[in-house]
Amino acid sequence: MIRTALCEAFGIDYPIFAFTPSEHVAAEVSKAGGLGVLGCVRFNDADELDRTLTWMDENTDGKPYGVDVVMPMKVPTEGTSTDLSAYIPDEHTEWVDKALLSMGVPPLPEGEGREGVLGWLHSTARSHVDIALQHRPVLIANALGTPPKDVIDKAHEHGIKVAALAGAPKHAVSHVSNGVDIIVAQGYEAGGHTGEIASMVLQPDIVDAVGPDVPVLGAGGIGSGRQIAASLALGAQGVWTGSIWLGTSEYRNLNTHAGWESAFTRATSADTRRMRIYTGKPARLLKSKWTDAWEAEGSPVPLPMPLQNLLVSDAHNRINAAGDPDVVAMPVGQIVGRMNEVRPVAEVMADLIAEFEATVKRLDAIAEG
Amino acid sequence: MIRTALCEAFGIDYPIFAFTPSEHVAAEVSKAGGLGVLGCVRFNDADELDRTLTWMDENTDGKPYGVDVVMPMKVPTEGTSTDLSAYIPDEHTEWVDKALLSMGVPPLPEGEGREGVLGWLHSTARSHVDIALQHRPVLIANALGTPPKDVIDKAHEHGIKVAALAGAPKHAVSHVSNGVDIIVAQGYEAGGHTGEIASMVLQPDIVDAVGPDVPVLGAGGIGSGRQIAASLALGAQGVWTGSIWLGTSEYRNLNTHAGWESAFTRATSADTRRMRIYTGKPARLLKSKWTDAWEAEGSPVPLPMPLQNLLVSDAHNRINAAGDPDVVAMPVGQIVGRMNEVRPVAEVMADLIAEFEATVKRLDAIAEG
Repeated sequence: MIRTALCEAFGIDYPIFAFTPSEHVAAEVSKAGGLGVLGCVRFNDADELDRTLTWMDENTDGKPYGVDVVMPMKVPTEGTSTDLSAYIPDEHTEWVDKALLSMGVPPLPEGEGREGVLGWLHSTARSHVDIALQHRPVLIANALGTPPKDVIDKAHEHGIKVAALAGAPKHAVSHVSNGVDIIVAQGYEAGGHTGEIASMVLQPDIVDAVGPDVPVLGAGGIGSGRQIAASLALGAQGVWTGSIWLGTSEYRNLNTHAGWESAFTRATSADTRRMRIYTGKPARLLKSKWTDAWEAEGSPVPLPMPLQNLLVSDAHNRINAAGDPDVVAMPVGQIVGRMNEVRPVAEVMADLIAEFEATVKRLDAIAEG
Repeated sequence: MIRTALCEAFGIDYPIFAFTPSEHVAAEVSKAGGLGVLGCVRFNDADELDRTLTWMDENTDGKPYGVDVVMPMKVPTEGTSTDLSAYIPDEHTEWVDKALLSMGVPPLPEGEGREGVLGWLHSTARSHVDIALQHRPVLIANALGTPPKDVIDKAHEHGIKVAALAGAPKHAVSHVSNGVDIIVAQGYEAGGHTGEIASMVLQPDIVDAVGPDVPVLGAGGIGSGRQIAASLALGAQGVWTGSIWLGTSEYRNLNTHAGWESAFTRATSADTRRMRIYTGKPARLLKSKWTDAWEAEGSPVPLPMPLQNLLVSDAHNRINAAGDPDVVAMPVGQIVGRMNEVRPVAEVMADLIAEFEATVKRLDAIAEG
């Protein structure tokens, strides 16, 4: 058993929160007693998100689920991808194309994959929230800073809790004073956007900074029951996991990259890089020829958010279509070293829980001498 | 109680290993039931180390203690500091002097503090080992790579265990195959030399890589009982601590820096930098005007080990003599955010143990639902 106050608050069996862009993974986590949290950033089309959340409503056996949007506190330059692409220097576009060709990644067939990922835009994230409110999420998480006050208020009116990621205690305190209910303390080892303070230090620092009334989820480096026990030992009331679900059989429905499974099963915990190349802000990615190219001499300086993601989104599509395990553009945490085989979500969940229980028994023996 | 197999192996009550350059801190930790480990790198004079270890023999109530030497696997260029200084470019020396003057750090009085820290030289570290063998340490730790085979053999002949730091699983495996008994898994958040993999991921990875017969000490980010519980949850059999002891009243005997206490009590976990400026290899330091200067435009590229430490050792002496809390050159981990007051070693030890026990009780309640 893993039971904290969050279980009752959300109607879940285990305080294991699973961030994933796959509705199939999210649904399976919720059905297995955790809380699946669907990442919305990939949905450019409002109707597609609406249909996907309807699918979630119908395929989770009535279990709760959450959604994750990306809403920067500072609203970046808005516009359609066509407008914004005017701000991308030609040299950047040319360098990306040349780099891809030198890695053997061909262009896409004419007319495919030219649209950027609009989920990084503030207006798109707002429409994600509006659509989510027409469904039954129990949690709206914001992966980037404090959500705007009116979004928090609207969520609360619908009885929905709001979570926000923090990479430093001062950000956590600011989230709470703006009305955020739950802090995701995301350490340096995490995949995707992440700060400089590592989980062992960050998690108890944030727990102490926000006080006992604000639940904290430990994030960054959580992929086993031992790590859940460590995070709860540090004072978290639950864990926020992401990378490990990229290694599940249900994730295959997204079909992101044919070479992805070979790439992550062979990777060690040393094989990630924290760089600005994915979105313009520091985010941890799997090391590959793609990250190497951006580290090589003569590579351009990444553009600010949201331009960098527009610059590379076509490249991501090309890389995914090529399916070469040596050329991968995938956010993943240092936990990737522990992802050595593809397994069903239910099996991963069962292992997390069993290892947590065994770990607490082991600690008991140490404490009893 | 905190009792693992290491307690019996070393004759200690708690598997809390305390690295410290202060014999006063080391002795107090050992007397409080942990294992004080004296850092030898500061001893240029063999007789001074000999006298200090005699003091340890006589002031630890017969309790065990350890020593820590710095012995790089690849022997760097040898020589006296006078020889080696020929390899230091004048531009570097001039930049350091100019930077210090601009921060208000005056030169030392004529004839003082001109000698570099020779403990970073391989030959000096070997003489440290020879002297230690004439005393009664139970552990020789090497803070930099696998110690040479003959040093390991000599230690074993004297019944002394050998520990080595590792920042990645492959280094830990290599240490063990060379005869090292205990691995110190030192995560990204640690003070001093540290790699890229953070403790939450590194510790279980190393535990799994070396197998159940090799004890692992969790290092990096350990400064509270919650963090000890987290580290043991991850599979470590004990913890290796360093930074927290810089904040003890016994450390004042070293009188390293009059402004140091003001500097660390106000620092948060965000106020460290991992840079090559201390020794030539990446090491985490307290952020200060000194680290800022090395990050500013126009600053030189740090020299390779052991030249960088020779370059800056005079600067360190000047900084320590000046005692300005804004200008500090001190290795410290991200745990510095938790060091908010100066306390006696015995009190810190008692708190670590009590918080560990309370944490295990809290985890029990979570596991029992």
